[in-house]
Parts: sequence; C-alpha cells; structure tokens
Amino acid sequence: MDTDTSISEDLKLAVLKKIKPTEAERKELMAVQDELAAEVKAAAEKLCVPDIFVKMVGSAARGTWLSGTHDIDVFISFPEETSRKDLEIRGMGIAREVAKHAEYAEDRHAEHPYLNIVYKGFDVDLVPCFRVCSACQLKSAVDRTPFHNEFIKSRIKGREDDVLLMKQFMRGGRVYGSELKTQGFSGYLTELLIIYYGSFEKTVKAASSWKPGKKIDIMQHSELEHSEPLVMVDPTDPKRNVAAALSLDKFCMFIDHCREFLKSPEIKFFFPESPLPIEDKEFLEKLESRKTSQLAIVFETPDVVDDVLYPQLYKMEQAASSLLSEYDFSVIKTGVWSGKPQTVVMLELISGTLPNVKKRTGPPVWVREHAEKFKDKYEGAENVFGGYIENGKYVYEVHRKYTTAKGLLEEQLLNCSLGKQVYQSVNKGFEVIENAEICRLKDQDFRVFLRKWV
Amino acid sequence: MDTDTSISEDLKLAVLKKIKPTEAERKELMAVQDELAAEVKAAAEKLCVPDIFVKMVGSAARGTWLSGTHDIDVFISFPEETSRKDLEIRGMGIAREVAKHAEYAEDRHAEHPYLNIVYKGFDVDLVPCFRVCSACQLKSAVDRTPFHNEFIKSRIKGREDDVLLMKQFMRGGRVYGSELKTQGFSGYLTELLIIYYGSFEKTVKAASSWKPGKKIDIMQHSELEHSEPLVMVDPTDPKRNVAAALSLDKFCMFIDHCREFLKSPEIKFFFPESPLPIEDKEFLEKLESRKTSQLAIVFETPDVVDDVLYPQLYKMEQAASSLLSEYDFSVIKTGVWSGKPQTVVMLELISGTLPNVKKRTGPPVWVREHAEKFKDKYEGAENVFGGYIENGKYVYEVHRKYTTAKGLLEEQLLNCSLGKQVYQSVNKGFEVIENAEICRLKDQDFRVFLRKWV
Repeated sequence: MDTDTSISEDLKLAVLKKIKPTEAERKELMAVQDELAAEVKAAAEKLCVPDIFVKMVGSAARGTWLSGTHDIDVFISFPEETSRKDLEIRGMGIAREVAKHAEYAEDRHAEHPYLNIVYKGFDVDLVPCFRVCSACQLKSAVDRTPFHNEFIKSRIKGREDDVLLMKQFMRGGRVYGSELKTQGFSGYLTELLIIYYGSFEKTVKAASSWKPGKKIDIMQHSELEHSEPLVMVDPTDPKRNVAAALSLDKFCMFIDHCREFLKSPEIKFFFPESPLPIEDKEFLEKLESRKTSQLAIVFETPDVVDDVLYPQLYKMEQAASSLLSEYDFSVIKTGVWSGKPQTVVMLELISGTLPNVKKRTGPPVWVREHAEKFKDKYEGAENVFGGYIENGKYVYEVHRKYTTAKGLLEEQLLNCSLGKQVYQSVNKGFEVIENAEICRLKDQDFRVFLRKWV
Repeated sequence: MDTDTSISEDLKLAVLKKIKPTEAERKELMAVQDELAAEVKAAAEKLCVPDIFVKMVGSAARGTWLSGTHDIDVFISFPEETSRKDLEIRGMGIAREVAKHAEYAEDRHAEHPYLNIVYKGFDVDLVPCFRVCSACQLKSAVDRTPFHNEFIKSRIKGREDDVLLMKQFMRGGRVYGSELKTQGFSGYLTELLIIYYGSFEKTVKAASSWKPGKKIDIMQHSELEHSEPLVMVDPTDPKRNVAAALSLDKFCMFIDHCREFLKSPEIKFFFPESPLPIEDKEFLEKLESRKTSQLAIVFETPDVVDDVLYPQLYKMEQAASSLLSEYDFSVIKTGVWSGKPQTVVMLELISGTLPNVKKRTGPPVWVREHAEKFKDKYEGAENVFGGYIENGKYVYEVHRKYTTAKGLLEEQLLNCSLGKQVYQSVNKGFEVIENAEICRLKDQDFRVFLRKWV
C-alpha cells in the first residue's frame, strides 16, 4: 500500500481545529461522567442493589467524540446470573433514581428498556446490561458494547485524531451513522477501520479501491460467510459483521467520496456547503426545464422513533414505485423526506399521464385453450378498442384503468404493502400533489431536500 | 379426424355461386388458351425454332380459378440442352411475335425474363422455360411450374369446388396470396392442402388445431429440416417448402379464421364487409378517445413492383420503430399503406413527447476505471442536471437529445437501414405528420386503412 500522503498537515489541523474537543470541553465531559458514575452507585446503594459495576462506553469514553456532540453512554452492569426480569426492574430502578437529578428523562426500548436523560446539557443513555465473560456469550445485543469499548480503548491510543477526521469526513460524504435512516458507518466501524489501516489517509486510500465483498478480519477468527458489501468481522464476536447495516449505496458513496478527496484534498469534503431552501420561483423554473412529472405523497408523520419510521418510509417508497411501474408509469427516481408534522414521499415520472389505450398481449394463437379464453374475454367486450394478431399472439387494445399516476395512487396506495405505523397514518389521510402545486409545502428543511431533488 | 361436417351445403352453394366460373366463362377461357397455344406454335415455326412444347399451367389450366380472375400462364418449353442465352433470345422472340396480336405487352423479369400481355381481355404471362425430366433437376425456379401442374391436375379432379371455396375463404381472412406484400397462402399450397386433407371442411377443421412446425409431406420424401411455421414439402421436390413464404402472423390469422368460422359458419367469412373510408370527424373522435400519439411518415411511392416495394416498406416500418424505441419512445403498433402517389408508414406511440431529463446509468462504482471514465464524462458537464449513486452505480440525469418523436424521425430516419428504392424516395423528401394533421391525407383507400388502424 502507498504510504505517502498528499494530504497536508495544514488541512488536517484546520479540520481538527473545528471538531476536536477543547481541553475545557474534555474536562467538563470527564467531570460529568464521574458525577454520573457516582450517582449510579449511590442509587444502587439506596435501592440495595449490590454487585453493580458502572461502565462508561462509547466515543466519550474513548476520546473519539466530535466536539459539540454531547453523548454519554453509561452502562449499569449486572452479574450474568441475574434474571432478565430482575435486570429490567432493578436496572431501570437505578436509572430512574439517577434521573431525579436530570433535566429530562424518557423511557426507550431497544432489546431491553433503557433510560435516556438530559443531564447538565449532556444527552445520556443509562443502559442496564449483563456482565458476560466474552462477547460471544451475550444475553442481549447491548451487552456487547463494553467489549467493543475494551477492544478499542487499548488500541486507539494515539490515533484519536484519525478517528475524528474520519468521522467528520464521513459526515461530509453523508455516510456517517448506522441508524436505519442513514444505513452508513457506525462509530465503532470507523474506529476499527482506523485500527486496521493505521491512519485516516491510509483508510481513504484503501477505500478508494474497495469492491463489494471486501472483508476485514482483524482477529482472523471469522466463523460465518456474510453477503453485505463490506464485512468487518467483530473482533469481539467472530460471527458478527460490524458493517451489517451499511447499504450498498452508502458503501459506494464512501468509495466515491474517498476518490474525489484524493484528487483534490480540500476542506469542503469535511464541511460541504449546506444548500439553501429552494424558492418557489427556482422550483418552477426547474420543473419547466426538466419537463418531467413530480408527485408528492403527503401525510402526517407517524409518532415513532426514526429506526422504526425510516424502514417503513423506504418500504413505502418502493411500494409506490412498484405500483406505478405495474400500471406502466415510468419512474425516474424516488425519495423520502420526513419532518414535523408532515412526511413526503417524492416520485419523479417520465409522465404523470398515459393514453387510454393499453395493449394486452395474450398467449400464442396455437396454445388453443388459453388463446381462446383470452380472446373470449376481450373480443367485442366493452372498453376494448380492437384486436389483432402480432408475432403469433392475440393482442387487444383495451381501455386503461388508470390514465393518471395521481388517480392510481389515490385509489391503490392503501392496498400496497405498508409498514404498520405508516399504514395507520396514511389511512387517516394523505394527499397526492403534483408539479407546481408542490410549492404549497413550505417547510424549509423540505425545501433543502427539494433543491437537491431537482 | 372428425369427418362430420356442420357446414351446410346451402352455404357452400351460395359461395360457389359467386365464385365459380360459369360454363360460358369456362368456354371462353378454353378458347383463348387454344388460340394462344396456336399462336405460340405459329410464331415458333415462323422464327424457325423447332422442338418447342406449349404448356398451359396455373389455376386456369387446372379448373381452380376464381370467377372474375382472368390469368393465363403459358409456358414455352425448350429442350433441356438449350443454353440459357438461347432460351432467352428465342423464347422472348416467340413471345414478342405472339404479342403482336395483344392489346398490351410489358417485359418482366423473374429468374429469367418473360412477357406479360393483355390478350382479349386476359392477363397472360408468356414464360420461356426448360423441359427437365424431374423437378429436382431444375435449371430455374419457373421450370418447376409444369411439374406442379402435372401433380395437381391428376389429383384434383372432383375437388375443384373445394379449392375454390378454400381460396375464397382465405381471401375473406386476408391470408390468400404468397406475394411478399401478403405473405399468405399460394394457390398451389391451397390445392395441396385440399388434396392432403380431402375437402374444404376437413382442411378447416384440421387447421384449427395447427401449431407452428406443422409438417405435411404427401410423398413422404422430405430431405431437409425447415424452420417456417408451416412446412408443405413439395411433392415434386423433396427439398422445397411450398409454404416458405407464409409468415407466422398469416399462419395464425388462418388458424383463427378457421376456428371462428367453425363456431358459426356464415358467408361473411368468405365475403367480409369492406369497411368504408373513415371521415375526418370520426378519425378526430378516435384520436380523442385513444389519447395516444399518431405519426404518419409520408413519401412518394417508389416506382417498383410490389414484390420489391413491400419488403422495403416492412423493413422501414421496423427501422422506424427500432429508432423510436432506442430513444425511449414507446411504440404501440406500426403499419404500412402504399398507394399512388404516396406511401404512408404509420406509428402509434404512448406519447410523441418525452421530458428533457434522461437517466443515464453507468458502471458500478467499484469497476473503477470504467466508473471514473463515466463520471468524468458527465460530472459538471453542460446539459447535465445532476448525478447520484443508485444500486451501486453512477446515475446522471442528462438533457435528452430528442424530446419529440417527430423531431427524431426528421433528423435520423435517413440514417436507418432502408432498402434501396425506398431510401431514394425518402431521400428526395418526406414529411412526418401528427394526429389531427393526418386528416390532410385524403386518399380513400388510405382512409379505409385508417379505419382499421384506430
């Protein structure tokens, strides 16, 4: 591998200056972490829960957090033999005790429940977990996190800046974040890449030539085949792919981002210009210049977390697109935007209208039974323009059921396969608006989405 | 095979009454044939050409001609050892001598030259040919005809009416005629079908269940595999398929015609109503009801015989349709009409216009060299709306070159692969007219075509 770097130290310093926590910020975070640990212990004592360990995990604990992010993950670790029910009751008991000193608290649920609080301005997750002796004997997925923490902490020393640079670089390329909305790179995955390749530069150079099926196995202990584009075998669990959530498109967007950056390493790859909301006039000009049909399906955003919402929105996007294709409309592209209170599924079509005539091709004339059935159905029927034989098959020109995409969506969208909460919301009401009418949607964040769209 | 017939004798008699030559017609034809034979012999004597036989061939000679048709085929047969040059000079010499008593004469050319004359109102072909001892030793294709004549004459006796019924039935189904315009059934093929199946009814019943690959080999002497939908091995030549000119669609139209006739045997299957020319008003109503785009390419009909013209028109129809598809226009159907002085290639499209945006999908991002080339070509280029990654591939939205089908045809039609004479004519000038504008074409035969079209 080419170890020379053409990326100037000045550039890296300029980036780090913006993203590396200051000494004051670091001290404050440490102090809050210590306070939280003390609070947890005090709460455990108060509630007479013995044998509890408190672990700070996540980027805050590893010195790889980006300035301005204020996330702390506090794991409250119970002995392995604790029952799940006990863990939940007692763990959440302790968490709620701590929350008494917080500005805000909210119950959340992953594999088991945890508490999210705002404490002195920090966004803190208080997570009860089991203390197992190795990551392959997990009782639940969150129990894995402390092992990740151990693995990274002992190896990342001296490379924290590379992790920070990489995280910001991925943000700039819109591929950072492994939640289901983004389907990009997680913080842990980023850290493992830096550990494996050795530095930010080396990672960028290597990734420029990645191909789907790329497999990295730091511990050389892989036990399973994986089908995802990138396979990063978890050093703490030989069966797990850390990059399982990474989509093919985000994988490719990262490759592309690395290549473009190497061509001309500039700060914009870390901090891209954020587009302005598009104005009505500009949008109308774009419509006029593209001459395609734009459709927006608008409905109330379901009140669920992003990890539940986005998979359902992506599913709806696919379902609407398939429905349109099935009825002969040509879809150019689809997209999803979600805000409060509305969600918009955007569809761009070659045309939102089709002629009345639809050509139905039947079986070959010589497949007698089927061919005769087909002919009987259409010959002389109402709503049939006429028929003929083409390439040995009966063909009838029939009246098309849906001549507008809008009409089709209005009548059939609810019959598509939709996720539960999205279905409920769409079922309460939705609107399909077209082209210039889309100017009715004024949300400024939607207008930013719309600028990129056209 | 079911030999019962549900076709009434009354129906057959009613048809025969319209198509069977009267005794007077028959006598007149015989007399003219005899006169022509005498004329040929006299001419041969006058020109000192010895050893000539005169043969009357074709349906007139076999008693299977339809009333109202006045075609006579006179073959002037030379000894096999005659040179081709001698055959042409002396044969055409005799023909021209005969033509001195004709109302009209015209040189024509198949594999070798022949003379077409109008003699006492009859359309007569005078064809010089070789006298070979069997059809497989032919010197040219026309030499085959006398063998066909012999084969049919000795077997068709008593079934002439069945042949007449079948020929008229095929006319009613628009599948009669083996010339390149029609690509249907020849007279000889029809006669062989009657000989093989035994009667009109039996042929109709059998054909209802035909499948492509149907092979009939009366003499059980086939020597070759054939790929055409119907194979009728020539009883006088084991290598030849008499049905080689029959297209798949005409084969299927005949099957369909037979099935429909058997469901309700009526005279309309022999004499279908001929549609009236469509009026402007009706045509405009149809346009409004179909809402498709109609395009007519109009140019001067090349001055060549149908067997040269129609293959070129069908080729042009295909070429125009492929051109439109290549540029994303959706073709519903195509058609050809040719008259004097104009020819029209008709095209019906889902839409005659497309938006400015065209989606170009490149190679997968990880096929680095190709992907980078693709990206370099489009990224930031003029006439590019924008790009993104979809399913692992670079996609660019570019300006479409042709947004109207009319514009595309006007600019690119001459670059299509066209036949010689059609190219010459189109190159002199053509027009693409659309939708309501098509009302400008007033030819009444075209208007009949147009009624069937919409």
